[in-house]
Amino acid sequence: MGKEQIGIPRGTRDFGPAEMKVRNAIFATIRSQFELFGFSPLETPAMENLSVLTGKYGEEGDQLIYKILNSGDFLNKVSATDFEAGSKKLLPKISEKALRYDLTVPLARYVVMNRHQLTFPFRRYQMQPVWRADRPSFGRYREFYQCDADVVGTRSLLCEVEIIQLICAVLSRLGVEQYLIKINHRKILAGLAAFCGAPGKEADMSVSIDKLDKIEWPEVAKDLANRGFPDDFVTKLQGLLKGATLPDSDDFKTLHKQLSANEEAQKGFEELIQIFNWFPSQSPVWRHLRFDLTLARGLSYYTGPIFEVVPQGVKVGSISGGGRYDELTAVFGLEGIPGVGFSFGIDRIYDLLYELGKTDQHAISSSRVLITQFDENAIPYYLELRQHFIQNNISCELYPEAAKLKKQFAYADAKQIPFVVVAGEDERRENVLTLKNLAMGTQQKLSLAEAISACQI
Amino acid sequence: MGKEQIGIPRGTRDFGPAEMKVRNAIFATIRSQFELFGFSPLETPAMENLSVLTGKYGEEGDQLIYKILNSGDFLNKVSATDFEAGSKKLLPKISEKALRYDLTVPLARYVVMNRHQLTFPFRRYQMQPVWRADRPSFGRYREFYQCDADVVGTRSLLCEVEIIQLICAVLSRLGVEQYLIKINHRKILAGLAAFCGAPGKEADMSVSIDKLDKIEWPEVAKDLANRGFPDDFVTKLQGLLKGATLPDSDDFKTLHKQLSANEEAQKGFEELIQIFNWFPSQSPVWRHLRFDLTLARGLSYYTGPIFEVVPQGVKVGSISGGGRYDELTAVFGLEGIPGVGFSFGIDRIYDLLYELGKTDQHAISSSRVLITQFDENAIPYYLELRQHFIQNNISCELYPEAAKLKKQFAYADAKQIPFVVVAGEDERRENVLTLKNLAMGTQQKLSLAEAISACQI
Repeated sequence: MGKEQIGIPRGTRDFGPAEMKVRNAIFATIRSQFELFGFSPLETPAMENLSVLTGKYGEEGDQLIYKILNSGDFLNKVSATDFEAGSKKLLPKISEKALRYDLTVPLARYVVMNRHQLTFPFRRYQMQPVWRADRPSFGRYREFYQCDADVVGTRSLLCEVEIIQLICAVLSRLGVEQYLIKINHRKILAGLAAFCGAPGKEADMSVSIDKLDKIEWPEVAKDLANRGFPDDFVTKLQGLLKGATLPDSDDFKTLHKQLSANEEAQKGFEELIQIFNWFPSQSPVWRHLRFDLTLARGLSYYTGPIFEVVPQGVKVGSISGGGRYDELTAVFGLEGIPGVGFSFGIDRIYDLLYELGKTDQHAISSSRVLITQFDENAIPYYLELRQHFIQNNISCELYPEAAKLKKQFAYADAKQIPFVVVAGEDERRENVLTLKNLAMGTQQKLSLAEAISACQI
Repeated sequence: MGKEQIGIPRGTRDFGPAEMKVRNAIFATIRSQFELFGFSPLETPAMENLSVLTGKYGEEGDQLIYKILNSGDFLNKVSATDFEAGSKKLLPKISEKALRYDLTVPLARYVVMNRHQLTFPFRRYQMQPVWRADRPSFGRYREFYQCDADVVGTRSLLCEVEIIQLICAVLSRLGVEQYLIKINHRKILAGLAAFCGAPGKEADMSVSIDKLDKIEWPEVAKDLANRGFPDDFVTKLQGLLKGATLPDSDDFKTLHKQLSANEEAQKGFEELIQIFNWFPSQSPVWRHLRFDLTLARGLSYYTGPIFEVVPQGVKVGSISGGGRYDELTAVFGLEGIPGVGFSFGIDRIYDLLYELGKTDQHAISSSRVLITQFDENAIPYYLELRQHFIQNNISCELYPEAAKLKKQFAYADAKQIPFVVVAGEDERRENVLTLKNLAMGTQQKLSLAEAISACQI
């Protein structure tokens, strides 16, 4: 047996029935809330033209894009000189397509291609896998799903409000109660950098302070120094940086005052206050919403409010995040299309539900009923029985062979099928079924109608 | 604007909101029936090790597999000699991974890897895209979904019965009424080849007669001759070949008798008769089931009953098909694992529903209600209103800007949102809403509760 062949690529996963049932429940919950909030589905191809992806994720990102070899004789137009020029120069001659790296660039490409047909504001959601040739590690995969929702073509901050409401709706339906929605504003970070003496350096500063959820301040201070920020900048920044605080807290008001001379920061504060004011005072959002100056988010294209959802009291980190951008499609030469978007991390949410012990309640067992078979001549009867269960929306399978009953029960046990029907000659004569409840270890003789109600509970 | 960059690879598609809603409805219908019938979900990675896929689809298939270029400096270990040896020899040195070509080989790989943990018979379904570097043409794409269900590890023909019932259940829920389920048996085809004078040549013969749904007999006869079948074989075959016929027809019985000397054919007939006998006489299946000796199905791994679902009175061809195989995992060195499987073609089903004019009824409009905005100060009120609709499971969006009402109505119109709420100062004072029904062109002043019921109908 060709053992060396059997395996899957590092950083990828098979999802068997038990995991899939929980994942599908998560997908279905997110999808239904996306649609309730008026987002429409979009799917784009796994393969994009390499030229569409290249240069959109920085030099490092370009390295992590999976390239697809041209089909057929891919060396057809390649000369020895091309070969000697090395991988980088050879690449565009042997590869024209690549795998999707995120869902944002495909969205931008779709919007540009369809801008004359789309109705703006364009509200789309997209739930598809992406691929990154990253070094695999705990919780970091080379294939993973992103679940994005964006409102494209409006500057209205109402979108931020509804996204926060949507996040609360999804998490509440998944049974997640303990989490914070941290919010900050790119313009406040810009003002902060200027105020501390490094105007225009907010992107570099953000990358550093973004690490505060993983490493302590002294290390972040060192990182800032390494990036060329002078000592007095670092000291001034330390005096201002506070962690998560309530939106109407004194910390928030103090900072607002401290940065009052910076116009950009003021614009940021005004926008956040606008968002806060739109939530009704009795909204459940207040239990979760926090202003957090240390929230920076790495992506450089955010220009307005940014946010992240962090479960509390568990090991799992951020499960969702997003923000507002001024330019979605500028990389493709189409300017002036702003928007706001966010993403749910399915793998993290799965890990969270697992850590909370909530995966069972979301799993739909494959079958609720197994009809055992121990008389081949009764197969038409078994088949009819099964149709009755299925027509009553009870998932039901018929054991395909007249195997020993013990084996059939072991099958039900292994698959955690809760009910087993035994219908032998005696039962069929009396027009009843024996229904066994495997979890309880009980059994009853019931009419078909009674058995159906018993399985529906 | 970098126009040359904007586009998607040939043979791939974007699915915008209108198409996605129908596609999602089809997916949801198939998924729910798969689960009702006791199939469990499986998902495998898009990328498989190249060695897992190579050699499983024939020489031609290998050519059509999309290979992924190794990441980083892929020429690292490549010498000038390797380069000069040409594409074929160079390939394994610069590519270790490839894109999934179908869902059957990944299933086989999964079963081999997890054989000690799985409960057999293993009933799995899988709905994922596959990729083929085929020449794109009408209805043939380079990325398309397969929706497979298989029962692995049993020889019971009950599985064939339930698959046929499952197909009927799915099509009935999709509103498809006119279709035939054609069934044949590989062993009958083997007997037929032997009877006509070419024992063991049934695979070659099948490829020819499989074309009978596209070309006429004289051309098929020519094709047979080209494949080296002698004239008397072709004549004898022509005398026996009949199209679709009822399972209890005289044609079927006659053929059964004619091939009575061939043991293999007899086994095939017995199995089909067994399957027919298990359907209750009043089953709706009888309206659809046909024995069809011309049904051959190309794939060489089928060994038992084979079937295909062909809609009637439309241009769209086969929308589903499958069959029984003796060996799922033998290509990986693990023998003795039989099973039966089938697949729904999502693209074909979409085309069929479109041709039948049934796409509208399956589309869930993105939003049912648009709340118009023409007073920024009323935003907290609008947001609360929206929550009421959403909590009543009515998808609802709030127009994000206080734009002109005309523009907001045009938005609802373009997105086919059926209801528009207008709640100005007057309405808020009177504690009512104006609800407009765009399709009917009517409007009413209603209480919130009345408006919610009106939108629920």
